[in-house]
Amino acid sequence: MERERLIALVEATLDEVMPRPDGPAAGLFEAMRYAVGAGGKRIRPLVCLASSAAVGGDVEDARYPAAAIEILHNYTLVHDDLPAMDNDVERRGKPTVWKKFGEAGAILAGDALLALAYQVAAKSPRNVAEIVGVLGEMGVGVVMGQVGDLELGNGERGTAAAKAMAVEPGNGEVEFVYRHKTADLFIAAAKMGALAGGGDEAAVGKLGEFALNLGLAFQYEDDLLDGDGAWPADETRRLVDESTAAALAALEGLPGDVSFLCGLARSLVGRKA
Amino acid sequence: MERERLIALVEATLDEVMPRPDGPAAGLFEAMRYAVGAGGKRIRPLVCLASSAAVGGDVEDARYPAAAIEILHNYTLVHDDLPAMDNDVERRGKPTVWKKFGEAGAILAGDALLALAYQVAAKSPRNVAEIVGVLGEMGVGVVMGQVGDLELGNGERGTAAAKAMAVEPGNGEVEFVYRHKTADLFIAAAKMGALAGGGDEAAVGKLGEFALNLGLAFQYEDDLLDGDGAWPADETRRLVDESTAAALAALEGLPGDVSFLCGLARSLVGRKA
Repeated sequence: MERERLIALVEATLDEVMPRPDGPAAGLFEAMRYAVGAGGKRIRPLVCLASSAAVGGDVEDARYPAAAIEILHNYTLVHDDLPAMDNDVERRGKPTVWKKFGEAGAILAGDALLALAYQVAAKSPRNVAEIVGVLGEMGVGVVMGQVGDLELGNGERGTAAAKAMAVEPGNGEVEFVYRHKTADLFIAAAKMGALAGGGDEAAVGKLGEFALNLGLAFQYEDDLLDGDGAWPADETRRLVDESTAAALAALEGLPGDVSFLCGLARSLVGRKA
Repeated sequence: MERERLIALVEATLDEVMPRPDGPAAGLFEAMRYAVGAGGKRIRPLVCLASSAAVGGDVEDARYPAAAIEILHNYTLVHDDLPAMDNDVERRGKPTVWKKFGEAGAILAGDALLALAYQVAAKSPRNVAEIVGVLGEMGVGVVMGQVGDLELGNGERGTAAAKAMAVEPGNGEVEFVYRHKTADLFIAAAKMGALAGGGDEAAVGKLGEFALNLGLAFQYEDDLLDGDGAWPADETRRLVDESTAAALAALEGLPGDVSFLCGLARSLVGRKA
């Protein structure tokens, strides 16, 4: 399983399912494509495809859930960047969606991406009810994470907004946010891939465990890169190592090819961006 | 089929699936319940339940799709009321969600409701892939309608926002907006109900046709009530009658009990609110 081939499958599927910018709502579709096509690393869809392989399934079977998780991930970025949230004007070196298409445009483009994600996930060749159930649960979870993140003051107007939502601050709060804001979409990616590949309940559970720890490692590593973590750097480094080890341990005993997922987990440790 | 019994089924299902306001994200869940529990007429879930009966199915089989369409409908209201959109401070005699929970709170509560809607729809006892596919398609459609509606100037900051989205104004534009902003959720309700009740493709198609015309009649009647339609009142009255007749005609030949849907279509003509 070469990374390039998997990325090509993700990009081809995204291009297939994203609406073409024509007709009366062409501007909406343009904003949606702008949001999704802005050159992300596509880590979540790669996890999804590789999770199908990890249960002994075909990566092709997970192509729609993989596209769905990337679409859903990008809707979260579009809404997180809004003035009422993190108030970011630039992402990946380009204007954010609200900066380019207006606030209403960004709210609506994000909404349409979220609805599209479920439509696309439902194209899985099997286990659609379970797949949509997982994506729905994690779709709510990622919002819970953003509510907590605003409370932590990462957003400009964060604290006031989250106080209105009654999130209590505290140390457990950091873990709550990391779990939901970051890990939930990794969990959805892995479980959907395992379900699309025909994995049994135990295999789906193992991949969920893998993805939770991968997501936590990813977030702790982010803290190290940004130098703004909730803990001192050596403690954060320890958390990265612990989470990575737990992720790798969860892959043991799976019936399929776990090499890609192992490599991905290892590559997060000490990554540069 | 008494309306009261159907309404009770909708309310019980909504209460079952809406998250309880406790834990670190209690404020988010409170905002979600505030949005959905604010005393709507529940017309869309009634259409969903009755569409299951119309294909000869059990109304109970459509309870989760019915709850899903009501949750999705309420997310559209939460986001439409935002300052960047229609900038409304009151709905159904109470403060709008953003007025009570802040802008970020309303964006996030709407997002979580949308994700929840798909999670709930996936609990249908059959045809989940088709049901989620319809809800996804119509979930994108309703956003297309809102983009067009902003262009028509119904929102305070509408025109500028929609111009940025490149929607072209014009006469066909009004029909485009009515079809998507209003009829799409009726279509989703009816088709999901028919699918949940085990209807065949022809029956699902007929109920989609019924719901398109019901939605148009609903919107034209709204214009008459508000006195702000795109056409003169007598022309709008003719459009109500035409759409109602087309809705009733679409119900002919269905294998189940269509009495509730007939009554609903007839009750829209000359309604007072």
